[in-house]
Amino acid sequence: MKRKETESSTKEKRREILKDLKGFGRQLYRQMEGGKFPSVEMPSRSTENIFYSPEVRQYILGEKSVKRSSRNIRHIRPFTQMVWAGFFARELVKNRKTSTLRDVYYSAQAYEMSFKDQPESNNIITDLETTTGFAREDFNVFPEERSAIFGDLTIEYTVPGYEGKQLNLMSHPDGVMIGPSLVSAEFAKTGADKVIAIEKGGLFTRFVEERVHKKFNALLVLTAGQAPRATRHFIHRLNKELDLPVFIFTDGDPWGMHIAMVIISGSANAAHLRGLTTPDAKWSGVYATDIVDYKLPSDPLTDVDVKRLHELEKDPRYDGELWKREIKTFLKIRKKAEQEAFSRYGLTYIVDEYLPAKLEETA
Amino acid sequence: MKRKETESSTKEKRREILKDLKGFGRQLYRQMEGGKFPSVEMPSRSTENIFYSPEVRQYILGEKSVKRSSRNIRHIRPFTQMVWAGFFARELVKNRKTSTLRDVYYSAQAYEMSFKDQPESNNIITDLETTTGFAREDFNVFPEERSAIFGDLTIEYTVPGYEGKQLNLMSHPDGVMIGPSLVSAEFAKTGADKVIAIEKGGLFTRFVEERVHKKFNALLVLTAGQAPRATRHFIHRLNKELDLPVFIFTDGDPWGMHIAMVIISGSANAAHLRGLTTPDAKWSGVYATDIVDYKLPSDPLTDVDVKRLHELEKDPRYDGELWKREIKTFLKIRKKAEQEAFSRYGLTYIVDEYLPAKLEETA
Repeated sequence: MKRKETESSTKEKRREILKDLKGFGRQLYRQMEGGKFPSVEMPSRSTENIFYSPEVRQYILGEKSVKRSSRNIRHIRPFTQMVWAGFFARELVKNRKTSTLRDVYYSAQAYEMSFKDQPESNNIITDLETTTGFAREDFNVFPEERSAIFGDLTIEYTVPGYEGKQLNLMSHPDGVMIGPSLVSAEFAKTGADKVIAIEKGGLFTRFVEERVHKKFNALLVLTAGQAPRATRHFIHRLNKELDLPVFIFTDGDPWGMHIAMVIISGSANAAHLRGLTTPDAKWSGVYATDIVDYKLPSDPLTDVDVKRLHELEKDPRYDGELWKREIKTFLKIRKKAEQEAFSRYGLTYIVDEYLPAKLEETA
Repeated sequence: MKRKETESSTKEKRREILKDLKGFGRQLYRQMEGGKFPSVEMPSRSTENIFYSPEVRQYILGEKSVKRSSRNIRHIRPFTQMVWAGFFARELVKNRKTSTLRDVYYSAQAYEMSFKDQPESNNIITDLETTTGFAREDFNVFPEERSAIFGDLTIEYTVPGYEGKQLNLMSHPDGVMIGPSLVSAEFAKTGADKVIAIEKGGLFTRFVEERVHKKFNALLVLTAGQAPRATRHFIHRLNKELDLPVFIFTDGDPWGMHIAMVIISGSANAAHLRGLTTPDAKWSGVYATDIVDYKLPSDPLTDVDVKRLHELEKDPRYDGELWKREIKTFLKIRKKAEQEAFSRYGLTYIVDEYLPAKLEETA
């Protein structure tokens, strides 16, 4: 089974997933019919097989693969679990039910399939992702956390009960939740020409109030800290399908930087997946240099912050001029600042002065 | 200034708040015009002045009060800070801008008002709550966290740009975010006859998918863990203004129990406020006795869980038969279970079997 490189509509995707899962089962039957012990082969996810690819601009898996065979007594357990996970994923997609990783763990018991703990069942779901190339969200296994979006984008639902219904994402000024229904929706039309992703709820609300969506013709995405995978995929879609540039605003510290980086280049533990990254997205601040230039109220870096910065220095994703400069500056000034620090110049300064300056600088 | 005991519409409330804040300022001017050092008196929030009231069914403040006088050199700093906080709150309400506690801290610097750290400014905001009897959300100071609601309730916005616009809360099946715009909205109409509050996002989505809102004629509220204050106030309003009974579903452990309790009876550190509790709301599970009756997959209680249960045993809010029985059962069986544990009987068991049984049991 191959990785999906092309974008496709939600409906097509659903068909592809069902086909893929069926193919997974058929392959096992064929092996058995051919008198062989059924087995499955997939790329290895061990750290020595994870590489950063400057071409794909994300972590990818190398050439090493692992084989799970029902012939090997130590493999029988994970092999069986994986076959069950494939079956269960198909049930979810076919019946259009969503679930969570936690649900999967407990659901197994309904089939007398045993997982010793949650990490074991999580790992099997990741195996299924690796062998099919689909993300667990494609199998309707969603995270608990929800983020939000606001702006002039009209979506068309594909979930049962809402099929064909449209919603404009300006309909609720507190923001529209990015959950299973939204991420599976099609894009009908938009008047926006960019996406602005924001780390914090308070600032997201400020941006809505100050009509950033109108003034800057932008869709506003609240990541609520580290963006959930479903949200990263949604940002990816906004960028690819609607051709919208993406700007990311975070706190000015190594953690904020990394929130932006994970949206841009993804994480090592999703090296087996595509479609979660937005390599052309820009980190637009708060930079270490902004702390100096704007004389922002700041806090001293903690030991943990400094340690994190030294880790980022060695991270291949941070091999760019901007990132190197900012890491260096953080380490030099030994300070960090939050987005709210701009309030020292008044509540709307960040929208009136900082935002336009940064959008121009990072466009 | 007195506490607000009556419900009032959002617009009236806004007028009251502005009047109250103006009154706060006028009082200071009068004192000065009378040749006195301005001062302010408010109920003490020290632990020895916090009592549980079985009548009001929440923690309340006792008779002790504290006076802050500009005559006392040690009081000048907090007194000045509080006057500034009153001024800033009025600016927010008057200009219809929202902010966060973090924003308040930084905004002070725009006025050369100094707070040595965030806890100091948070505390001054609580002083302002105490003296006015309004919650900080009434002053447009909102938390970062957002929870969500779904169901047949039509609201009418009062925020600028959306005044008079209506939204039915079934319009987005991932749930409508409970943020500043929603909590300040008026209720236009509802077809629901109950509220079901749910601790976890995964289960909230399951309830929407399984059409619990239709089958049980319910508004579904996602608390996303401990419900933010704005959400508790919103649940209070659903109960008071629409006369809807409230049922709360949490994990079966002391933490889930307490999520329900805080919605029902509030917390000690909001003893100075009214309107955040829903004393008639019911905790509808997962009970310790459910773990036994439904043979749920469970985890052993940790030492921290057990310690917490012993604390709850002594807590005056837990002085009821149900609570006592469940605490005792938890301590006896030494087990806890999550809501998702019902998935062992299939994904829809919780909706098909457990939910109707518990709604009947706790009605």
